[in-house]
Amino acid sequence: MLKIFKPSLYVILDLDLPGLSKDPLTLAEDLCTGGVDILQLRAKNSSGKYLFEIGKKLRELTRKNKKILVINDRVDIAQAVAADGVHLGQEDLPVEYARAILGKDKIIGISTHSLAQARKAHLSKVDYLSVGPVFKSPTKPELKPLGTVFLKKIVKISRLPVVAIGGINLNNLPEVLACGVNSVAVISSILRSKDVLETVKKFKELLHYGR
Amino acid sequence: MLKIFKPSLYVILDLDLPGLSKDPLTLAEDLCTGGVDILQLRAKNSSGKYLFEIGKKLRELTRKNKKILVINDRVDIAQAVAADGVHLGQEDLPVEYARAILGKDKIIGISTHSLAQARKAHLSKVDYLSVGPVFKSPTKPELKPLGTVFLKKIVKISRLPVVAIGGINLNNLPEVLACGVNSVAVISSILRSKDVLETVKKFKELLHYGR
Repeated sequence: MLKIFKPSLYVILDLDLPGLSKDPLTLAEDLCTGGVDILQLRAKNSSGKYLFEIGKKLRELTRKNKKILVINDRVDIAQAVAADGVHLGQEDLPVEYARAILGKDKIIGISTHSLAQARKAHLSKVDYLSVGPVFKSPTKPELKPLGTVFLKKIVKISRLPVVAIGGINLNNLPEVLACGVNSVAVISSILRSKDVLETVKKFKELLHYGR
Repeated sequence: MLKIFKPSLYVILDLDLPGLSKDPLTLAEDLCTGGVDILQLRAKNSSGKYLFEIGKKLRELTRKNKKILVINDRVDIAQAVAADGVHLGQEDLPVEYARAILGKDKIIGISTHSLAQARKAHLSKVDYLSVGPVFKSPTKPELKPLGTVFLKKIVKISRLPVVAIGGINLNNLPEVLACGVNSVAVISSILRSKDVLETVKKFKELLHYGR
């Protein structure tokens, strides 16, 4: 289980995101300094070698800063860099196999986009589920937003920590927090902001005092 | 080490290859029936879920037919489907980490494209190296062929089994075998042939009698 103060800030360092303001490692340093709780490395279009190299650097950085590091999709990269866990999508390796490889102590999260997927996640050995997109997402604009009424419903029935994702920014953050989520996952509104460090700090402020 | 009669037939079932004559599993059945020794699953553009599903089916099939199954790139998929090993490219997870994850009993192969890479491979814990492209390859036409003079040189200095790869067909096979390789890796000239089973059989004939 995620032993993280609720609500926590979960940032997905998506290396495929166009318009990243800095290089990945500098971004990650800003995120750590600003107070990110969980950092996910996502890079669907990168080679295993690059993922490994950047993952190893992020592992050093997150260990030093006592942050959680999760690797998207690639269980082998998570093992190789000794990450805290993996985040799996519906099209990734099935949870039971990832669990068998990683053992019980690693974190496994899964993306869910419907009530049925959220229910199914509860029958698998995951530690948390992400639910989204809550709002229209700049990174996945083709997906229909689920909305906060739906999010609230999932939080109510979920026995697992819920990470809200998709189009979350400083303006709609209070509405998301009001749903009782354990964590908010953010990509664009932090990574594309002019001052990443400042934006992370604002997110953290709202997470701790703005509920 | 690869406990395979020399020379063996190594076929790469590349799911991204345009113009595959049949569905992957039917192709694999033909390959097994025809006498492939090592089957590699390669699908750079497939999801982890799909790779896992097709990998599991190939595992059943290759186990039944006593063939070696190797997964390209993805160490986690190899673990999940209990493949015999992985094949790594120069841009994949470094060998030492793949070895740490898989343990000493699994096969790890690496692609090499130069003398320097072949030498470096000998310092790592791999079980074989592939060398290529020997000829102009239909699947990687941008790469400069290394030629059979070079191949022969590598075979001479290599303490590890050498798998020749790249543009190998029934016409140039005798020239490749004359270099003393342990195995020939074939993609297009088998998978794109009109009668896959017949072509595999012809390759096997030449491998056993045509040297």
